[in-house]
Amino acid sequence: MSRLNQPLGGNEMPRFGGPATMMRLPSLDTAEGLDACIVGIPMDIGTSNRPGTRLGPRQIRDESRMLRPYNMATGAAPFDSLQVADIGDVPINTFDLKKSVDIITARYREILTFGAIPLTLGGDHTLTWPILRAIREVHGPVALVQVDAHADINEHMFGETVAHGCPFRRAWEDGCLLNDKVTQIGLRGTGYAPEDFDWGRDRGWTVIQAEACWHRSLTPLMADLRARVGDAPVYLSFDIDSLDPAFAPGTGTVEPAG
Amino acid sequence: MSRLNQPLGGNEMPRFGGPATMMRLPSLDTAEGLDACIVGIPMDIGTSNRPGTRLGPRQIRDESRMLRPYNMATGAAPFDSLQVADIGDVPINTFDLKKSVDIITARYREILTFGAIPLTLGGDHTLTWPILRAIREVHGPVALVQVDAHADINEHMFGETVAHGCPFRRAWEDGCLLNDKVTQIGLRGTGYAPEDFDWGRDRGWTVIQAEACWHRSLTPLMADLRARVGDAPVYLSFDIDSLDPAFAPGTGTVEPAG
Amino acid sequence: MSRLNQPLGGNEMPRFGGPATMMRLPSLDTAEGLDACIVGIPMDIGTSNRPGTRLGPRQIRDESRMLRPYNMATGAAPFDSLQVADIGDVPINTFDLKKSVDIITARYREILTFGAIPLTLGGDHTLTWPILRAIREVHGPVALVQVDAHADINEHMFGETVAHGCPFRRAWEDGCLLNDKVTQIGLRGTGYAPEDFDWGRDRGWTVIQAEACWHRSLTPLMADLRARVGDAPVYLSFDIDSLDPAFAPGTGTVEPAG
Amino acid sequence: MSRLNQPLGGNEMPRFGGPATMMRLPSLDTAEGLDACIVGIPMDIGTSNRPGTRLGPRQIRDESRMLRPYNMATGAAPFDSLQVADIGDVPINTFDLKKSVDIITARYREILTFGAIPLTLGGDHTLTWPILRAIREVHGPVALVQVDAHADINEHMFGETVAHGCPFRRAWEDGCLLNDKVTQIGLRGTGYAPEDFDWGRDRGWTVIQAEACWHRSLTPLMADLRARVGDAPVYLSFDIDSLDPAFAPGTGTVEPAG
Amino acid sequence: MSRLNQPLGGNEMPRFGGPATMMRLPSLDTAEGLDACIVGIPMDIGTSNRPGTRLGPRQIRDESRMLRPYNMATGAAPFDSLQVADIGDVPINTFDLKKSVDIITARYREILTFGAIPLTLGGDHTLTWPILRAIREVHGPVALVQVDAHADINEHMFGETVAHGCPFRRAWEDGCLLNDKVTQIGLRGTGYAPEDFDWGRDRGWTVIQAEACWHRSLTPLMADLRARVGDAPVYLSFDIDSLDPAFAPGTGTVEPAG
Amino acid sequence: MSRLNQPLGGNEMPRFGGPATMMRLPSLDTAEGLDACIVGIPMDIGTSNRPGTRLGPRQIRDESRMLRPYNMATGAAPFDSLQVADIGDVPINTFDLKKSVDIITARYREILTFGAIPLTLGGDHTLTWPILRAIREVHGPVALVQVDAHADINEHMFGETVAHGCPFRRAWEDGCLLNDKVTQIGLRGTGYAPEDFDWGRDRGWTVIQAEACWHRSLTPLMADLRARVGDAPVYLSFDIDSLDPAFAPGTGTVEPAG
Repeated sequence: MSRLNQPLGGNEMPRFGGPATMMRLPSLDTAEGLDACIVGIPMDIGTSNRPGTRLGPRQIRDESRMLRPYNMATGAAPFDSLQVADIGDVPINTFDLKKSVDIITARYREILTFGAIPLTLGGDHTLTWPILRAIREVHGPVALVQVDAHADINEHMFGETVAHGCPFRRAWEDGCLLNDKVTQIGLRGTGYAPEDFDWGRDRGWTVIQAEACWHRSLTPLMADLRARVGDAPVYLSFDIDSLDPAFAPGTGTVEPAG
Repeated sequence: MSRLNQPLGGNEMPRFGGPATMMRLPSLDTAEGLDACIVGIPMDIGTSNRPGTRLGPRQIRDESRMLRPYNMATGAAPFDSLQVADIGDVPINTFDLKKSVDIITARYREILTFGAIPLTLGGDHTLTWPILRAIREVHGPVALVQVDAHADINEHMFGETVAHGCPFRRAWEDGCLLNDKVTQIGLRGTGYAPEDFDWGRDRGWTVIQAEACWHRSLTPLMADLRARVGDAPVYLSFDIDSLDPAFAPGTGTVEPAG
Repeated sequence: MSRLNQPLGGNEMPRFGGPATMMRLPSLDTAEGLDACIVGIPMDIGTSNRPGTRLGPRQIRDESRMLRPYNMATGAAPFDSLQVADIGDVPINTFDLKKSVDIITARYREILTFGAIPLTLGGDHTLTWPILRAIREVHGPVALVQVDAHADINEHMFGETVAHGCPFRRAWEDGCLLNDKVTQIGLRGTGYAPEDFDWGRDRGWTVIQAEACWHRSLTPLMADLRARVGDAPVYLSFDIDSLDPAFAPGTGTVEPAG
Repeated sequence: MSRLNQPLGGNEMPRFGGPATMMRLPSLDTAEGLDACIVGIPMDIGTSNRPGTRLGPRQIRDESRMLRPYNMATGAAPFDSLQVADIGDVPINTFDLKKSVDIITARYREILTFGAIPLTLGGDHTLTWPILRAIREVHGPVALVQVDAHADINEHMFGETVAHGCPFRRAWEDGCLLNDKVTQIGLRGTGYAPEDFDWGRDRGWTVIQAEACWHRSLTPLMADLRARVGDAPVYLSFDIDSLDPAFAPGTGTVEPAG
Repeated sequence: MSRLNQPLGGNEMPRFGGPATMMRLPSLDTAEGLDACIVGIPMDIGTSNRPGTRLGPRQIRDESRMLRPYNMATGAAPFDSLQVADIGDVPINTFDLKKSVDIITARYREILTFGAIPLTLGGDHTLTWPILRAIREVHGPVALVQVDAHADINEHMFGETVAHGCPFRRAWEDGCLLNDKVTQIGLRGTGYAPEDFDWGRDRGWTVIQAEACWHRSLTPLMADLRARVGDAPVYLSFDIDSLDPAFAPGTGTVEPAG
Repeated sequence: MSRLNQPLGGNEMPRFGGPATMMRLPSLDTAEGLDACIVGIPMDIGTSNRPGTRLGPRQIRDESRMLRPYNMATGAAPFDSLQVADIGDVPINTFDLKKSVDIITARYREILTFGAIPLTLGGDHTLTWPILRAIREVHGPVALVQVDAHADINEHMFGETVAHGCPFRRAWEDGCLLNDKVTQIGLRGTGYAPEDFDWGRDRGWTVIQAEACWHRSLTPLMADLRARVGDAPVYLSFDIDSLDPAFAPGTGTVEPAG
């Protein structure tokens, strides 16, 4: 038996019982001593259409009870070499989005100080900006892989600069990104202007629309992406609306054909 | 046939078709010329538990398609004497609760200037405070009938003074209420302190807990209430969580035994 | 700002508010002055299995609130050049399918007289026959592109000639179709006889079963289709059951493998 | 063990298995030899709002799997003295309401000829009229106990005389009812005119609105009803919308306060 | 601030975040040092109709996030005087009901040894028997208050003595109960024999059918019950099917009229 | 008209009515005289995560009402040459998994004695072992085609040898399988050890992981499979979790990417 934390197995406790943490991992108060940590950000006040992602962290943890430690396709075995735990949720201010953004940055600054890699359970996409701010303080600008139906690079939404459609614009303004190592994958749907997806391209980003992913192997795309990123530190941002609504019907901003 | 607006009847258009306005009434841009108007406030960023009331106005309007003009129990016939229309939604700023509050006050100031009585489709309870502010400007302080599971008189929530648990405290601070003509009905459940429901009582409000309503006729209660209000202008605030969750399971802040 | 109608944008009114019309377009009583119009036919009394499409037009309109004016994949920009509005629902007689059919033809005759192109929100597939009848009066027989799990060319269902499984047979009998320009795409599932899909082929129609669409680009198919249609006026009929039930679980006549 | 049919018990077959008949009774093709029979009428094309009662008979039968033979409150023990079976569904014509009405009358004429008492699983309320027509042929006019949110005595709906809001008007016209022995219980909600509920009263019917049933024992009401009916044959019509929507949320024509 | 554990408040962490324990109380591994403890038994293999109570403990804990420390109606303030925590779930053997029963007894023996009072989140009603066995070892036979739609005193179900319809028969056989202090409240519905509810009465139990609770104050009933119990230790067993299905639609063994 | 049983057609009885048997075929008590029979095993007490497959046979039968006799893609016409009927459910002991296993073997022994081929509606995967035991008695060891997300070859689960993750291990131990003719298709997800899928390979089985099926024609795979099986009798086991959760969201043990 490894001395590293392991997901609680189905032969010790039925999968429908036990702690409702991510993968039924142990729960800790801080990231101290961890290689990686699970963090929840229960927030949806940055969304412009259907709410509900505030319930995301609890629900993802509940559903994760089926996960076993080894990935049978890739051979990934994270719990053989990393100390991982679930450090709970960020206590956002659900009545004030701008204050929540600062609460998130502060919490991630602490996590990163402990040297842990955070895996975030969202939460609406506004949260990426404050996390990237904290990361820049520690690691400097980073490469970005964003899998998403939307570019989320609006100057503002309803006049606001803090909203779930703006985080990558804000992060760019704050110098959080290595522009030649930014890749947006899966953009699609309808827009306010024909050039909506070109803003990133004009900054040197690689923007791959969903149509370019249909009916083909994504292996070459992944090889390109790895070459582009090289040794730079990387932030991976996965928006659930990148999937087709058939696979993730609960998303708040539905775009068919993912 | 009356020249007043009438709900579109099921013999002209099947009830599952036609305009998705309240009771399938005509839609107008402003309250000009109306005795009463339906207004939606699609907002849930003031809620502290489950979201979703942002979808309330659209859903209430959809469900209202079954309503016919006469109430068979009370004989109420509003469309025989009042000009009523649906004037749509208030364009709140869904990313900033404090700005939304001011948008609401401005919209209701306009409505009241036209002399129309607004019937609001919410939306979370934060909205009552900005409406009462607009009302005070035109009518001065008013009597209040609040049917609710919660008192909603918190000094603050998570440090914020603008939230769905605070509107009646704010309205009281702003001098919007006639304290001897305020009635809270249906309060129940659990609280942070045993004296949670006494704050209003200390200000001269009449507070009737849910237990006092169980298994008895509410006729005497209504008679008392009418006597207390007298000729004063009245604001009626109905929170859907006043009903037992069996009758309104979708409410965000569930309290059994309503 | 264009003088043409535009979908109400999310920066003017939150997407979960505003009028519940298609794409939050303006609402008109008739198609006068329009290049294209949205029309709802709230009907399901022609269905042979699960009902519910009577609620289709209202629900499609509600879901359409996320749509923005530009299609980012194709570059389509309909609102740059066309005057479009939502002209509401056809008041079908929900107690009599045969009378409803005549109501639909009469309504579309009026729409076509104004020169507008109707985009119909159904409603069960029975409605295609009365629409095609109205179209033939104005435009003569037309090409047809039908995307559907079923051929819908039954002689009768339960002895009836008017039902959701019969519209293309009726339209063919009435001379509404250019037989060499009819394409049925996506037919699949089970049938009453092995030759169920051959009836159209015997009339010169192009019938492409779902199996011929799996795991391949549809670009050649679309090129063939365009060549076949040429300059003829075209009617596009899209049955939601053409999609796999994973993508459209609410359809009334479920056929896997779409 | 009785020689009479018994519901299949949970100790012979788990309640979630076995035949999906009413109470898991035996299935027969006709009512021959039965004292009482279960009949389904899978129909909703007579409804004016939400559809779905076509699925009613299958769903009621599925849910009935929990029922055991003795009623513990009343002592009723129907299977001790009556031969009962489930004789399946009436093959209505789902594309033509008027033809369905005649199919129903024909089927019930046959059932009544066998001397069996039918217990109908609906189906929308239109079906009561054709059943009462068949009953009158065999038994003459009958007493009626109707538990319902609506009077269902419209002259017509959308110009039609056959619809779910008209059956008791039609039955009255056809002389199916003993007017001094008709009792309508639970009427409530909104109406097209203040006198909507008086039509029956003008014919000598006893009409008891829902408000008269709230917060009181129904025992005196039942005693009155029994006295009024006396020895006359009785037809009991129970509309699920008589219950409050909290208890039967799936009903198509929702009326609160049942 | 009390040194006793308190439910995590909504002003420290939004109610939709934080630990998914009961009332967001601290989580402990054992009951050591506790006055009372929350225990989950995620089990449904003893049910005879719909499953799902295996998911009960997780779901109850999730829903409990709204609970605050004071009961506003009764003044109950358990966290002012008792040390309470959530000690997680019993690792039942979900493939073997009989082994699970022994696992439960062993776990409760340990809890009781620590002097803590367990509050159990079920789980199907089979669990009451093994808990009562553990209680008898420590406290001897106890008074019982059972609120339930069913008596659950079957000799066997499908030939088995361990099932959710048998726990009180087994507990009686094992001498766990003070027969003159047993009260069953709310029994109703249908049965296999008219005398189904009399088995307990024949043993000296007080059996109050649901009909005796309708439309009347339960205060006298509670006074009788308290007098009957006196100073004896009491076990309270609350079956969610005691509530009407309108209030608890998810129960596995639905009985209307609760 | 064939003298063989046919599914009840939609022109004889609306699809939402009629007997709730598989494809609305006739119901029989035994398999006598049948070429093939539909059998339900309403069981979920062998599942380790979400329950509910006990409701599977009833629900599959209900959904099957849309199926017509001819497969339009393959030309399969089973009812032209085979006598088929629905022989109902196996009365498993829902309180004891091990006894249920023996009940199943006994029932299938009887079916096979009649010479009928059983098509089983599950039910959790535990059921495959007792069926294969019965098959071996009559036919000897057989080829196996298992389409599944999981190998289901555990030595034990929670210490138990009878569970839904173990049937193929048990069948192998009992000599039910021709090891060189066993094919497992679609295995994926996470595991307890990197070599979880190799156990079968070590016994000579062909194990095809899901990744090997993505984005390619399965025709070569099927050709290989047919060659491998040759003339041997074959058992086909289809686990619904082999499909991606988008296509079968109700499965109890969800594995994405099917």
